[in-house]
Amino acid sequence: MIRDYRQVIRDGDGESMGIFSSASSLEPKAPEMHYVGMASLTEFNVAEAVAVLTRTPATLNALLRGLPSIWVHGNEGKHTWNAFDIMGHLVFAERTDWMPRVRIVLENGEARPFDPFDRFAQLKVSQDKSLEQLLDDFACLRRDNLAALHALNLQQEALDRRGKHPALGVVTLSELLATWAVHDLTHLHQLSRVMAHQYRDVVGPWSAYLGVLQCAGHSAP
Amino acid sequence: MIRDYRQVIRDGDGESMGIFSSASSLEPKAPEMHYVGMASLTEFNVAEAVAVLTRTPATLNALLRGLPSIWVHGNEGKHTWNAFDIMGHLVFAERTDWMPRVRIVLENGEARPFDPFDRFAQLKVSQDKSLEQLLDDFACLRRDNLAALHALNLQQEALDRRGKHPALGVVTLSELLATWAVHDLTHLHQLSRVMAHQYRDVVGPWSAYLGVLQCAGHSAP
Repeated sequence: MIRDYRQVIRDGDGESMGIFSSASSLEPKAPEMHYVGMASLTEFNVAEAVAVLTRTPATLNALLRGLPSIWVHGNEGKHTWNAFDIMGHLVFAERTDWMPRVRIVLENGEARPFDPFDRFAQLKVSQDKSLEQLLDDFACLRRDNLAALHALNLQQEALDRRGKHPALGVVTLSELLATWAVHDLTHLHQLSRVMAHQYRDVVGPWSAYLGVLQCAGHSAP
Repeated sequence: MIRDYRQVIRDGDGESMGIFSSASSLEPKAPEMHYVGMASLTEFNVAEAVAVLTRTPATLNALLRGLPSIWVHGNEGKHTWNAFDIMGHLVFAERTDWMPRVRIVLENGEARPFDPFDRFAQLKVSQDKSLEQLLDDFACLRRDNLAALHALNLQQEALDRRGKHPALGVVTLSELLATWAVHDLTHLHQLSRVMAHQYRDVVGPWSAYLGVLQCAGHSAP
């Protein structure tokens, strides 16, 4: 399961690469090896997903609250999202997507496909809010959703239940919960890229060494 | 300066794309337009960079402290970094790279090239620390470095001063400071991608909609 198509030299500043000629010096310490490409890529447990989901509001709050406008309102060009838009999207998803779909799987299984999710709703519903209000809304909604999830006390039988995605077809409840966590990470990934883009020119020749500036974004199909 | 080679449909879940047929509905609100691809891509001021630099320790703390091992020790395969390695790299850079180079520019200009930076040092110097110690070290070092930067009270003349990078050649002090901020963002970008990779398989068919899982990483040249 180990994917070795990726290289160690990336996403950092590429200076002094090759200082170590032996690749083995870069490998994780032995006690951690079992996490690499084994359990981590094949198993799912709710507590690990919740550990990420719990931390996202404070992470976004620390990253974004009170930032100067360049970081909040700068996007990557026409028809792209800025940090404000991304926060609006996360709030809307928290309100309408994740827990409602959990309930549909548990109550209806594959018999009732999920309602489609409007990826652009935040461009209407968030426009009169401040970034700080969106951060607060997100924290409250996430807290309530995780409390509701906890109350369900999901066991393996429930995690294996199947639902129907309107485009993707059959999915399981565990896949939905894992996606909720990775959706947080996808937008943290996007936020860091959108912010970095504002300094694309002012870093001068260092742009070649800054991995985030090489990221072209990744379209959904 | 507006870059329109990027598409709006990316890095999110691609469901329900095309709900709005008019692209204009996606554009930023009028009062924010002047930030897009204009001032944001051509100017630099210390306060804006410091706003990012100040927030990074709390952001990483909120994201990482206390996480289960899968998120801390999982990497992207052989010879790649996990969250622990990335934090070690940030600590080492904070100790040896940014402010020492600021001082070299101010004191020696182009006459003395920067010392090369060892991108793999953390694999030696951090191995006996915990993630929590690295988060604490990073917060202390960043606080002290920003205090030292503030004390320099840099004006435009100083920001325009030139130094010599051992590989990139002539750079300015403003480029160095901008790079410091984007280096934080590059590793936040990397962290979100490395963490998301741990769930690559368990999200099932949703992987197609999660932009962070399409990111192959970005090698330095």
